Amino acid sequence: MEEESLADQLAIGLLGGTGPQGRGLALRLALAGHRVLLGSRDPEKAAGVVAELLEGRDLPVEGVGNPDAAAGADVVFLVFPYAGQADVLPGLAGLIGDKVVVDVINPLGWDHQGPYMLEVPEGSAAEQAAALLPRARVVAAFHHAAPRLLADPEREVETDVLVASDDQGAKGLVLELADQIPGCRGVDAGPLRMARQLEGFTAVIVGINRRYKIHAGLRISRLGDDKRRRLNAELGPAGDREDGP
Amino acid sequence: MEEESLADQLAIGLLGGTGPQGRGLALRLALAGHRVLLGSRDPEKAAGVVAELLEGRDLPVEGVGNPDAAAGADVVFLVFPYAGQADVLPGLAGLIGDKVVVDVINPLGWDHQGPYMLEVPEGSAAEQAAALLPRARVVAAFHHAAPRLLADPEREVETDVLVASDDQGAKGLVLELADQIPGCRGVDAGPLRMARQLEGFTAVIVGINRRYKIHAGLRISRLGDDKRRRLNAELGPAGDREDGP
Repeated sequence: MEEESLADQLAIGLLGGTGPQGRGLALRLALAGHRVLLGSRDPEKAAGVVAELLEGRDLPVEGVGNPDAAAGADVVFLVFPYAGQADVLPGLAGLIGDKVVVDVINPLGWDHQGPYMLEVPEGSAAEQAAALLPRARVVAAFHHAAPRLLADPEREVETDVLVASDDQGAKGLVLELADQIPGCRGVDAGPLRMARQLEGFTAVIVGINRRYKIHAGLRISRLGDDKRRRLNAELGPAGDREDGP
Repeated sequence: MEEESLADQLAIGLLGGTGPQGRGLALRLALAGHRVLLGSRDPEKAAGVVAELLEGRDLPVEGVGNPDAAAGADVVFLVFPYAGQADVLPGLAGLIGDKVVVDVINPLGWDHQGPYMLEVPEGSAAEQAAALLPRARVVAAFHHAAPRLLADPEREVETDVLVASDDQGAKGLVLELADQIPGCRGVDAGPLRMARQLEGFTAVIVGINRRYKIHAGLRISRLGDDKRRRLNAELGPAGDREDGP
């Protein structure tokens, strides 16, 4: 993958991809030209979800088991519920190896006051993934993209995608992936430890959605697009090659 | 205050108001028609800052000691550094009483990786303030308004002001105050426990500012203004009277 640029098609594996976030990302990433392996514990369920998702559209999305999605992918997305992450990842660590891993998981609870962020011993779901996948290049991103909007290709997603990672090349690649979804803009949100703030902010957005009955996203204001693209391009995938091992 | 509406002028006390955030808020709240008591431990310093801030403009801003700002205000803003809050508030609790208190404090640290949120035993600076001021109606807000923009009345501040509180009337009032600053929009961000997410998100914004060399704010996308105003108006100050004691 080190030699490819994002002009090329990537194979993207979505682990636990049968939920709303997984379906929406599968559709958008396939529309952006990538080949998607939508994974589930149950490969038959994954195949059924893909058939439903495509509605006869001719897009390169395939429903497979999670191990096949992990093994066949250039970039792995984690989109299962937080409760499953610590159980599922250790068994897939060997297949994931040193790939780029995009953790989209929001560790949220819900009580009479609404949504809130769960306590995660490692600080965030993404930092937990990094602990469980010590060789992987972990990136936290896509927390604030509304599943309902992702799933409807007629609509723009209208959110900035805040991307946090300690791996500059992996971050650069995910910033570019974000830019390939109409209405999304990739924004460098800093080191992986900022994942805690990104995941927790989803509780704010979910509460706003309920209160105002919308599918909100968030925009960083005063961030001009030319400057954004120029500074993001310094990270990767060019940065990948410069800073990589 | 219960009988006033925001059409009326409020007396607003800014405790620890001599820093950039305090100066900026003093200017904008005075321009919105309120009377501002800019407080400091050192009343002479406060008076000097006010003279500098006004640059000869005829605005109702007065530099005073923190106790006078607390005693004379209808609404009290906390704008001192986080490190000072636990020392300063207990001595002012009697003067603050059951007033609306707007905590703007961001408990941030900075190391080689950039800004990060400090651990606060109570969860957030605003929840710490609520613990130290048990009678006050504590609201967390204005964390993401760039001081540089607040301080320049020629520019719009261009941020949504996310407002969290367990007191619906106090929240409604602060949402209206936010709407009175050009470029700001008040958005109900839920109960006071969300303050942790609002304060922590400032670390994301500060990092983005440094990385992209901007004065960023944040916008909740897909939140239409008519709906926002209508739903905010249900909270207060009308809501103040309906839900109040």
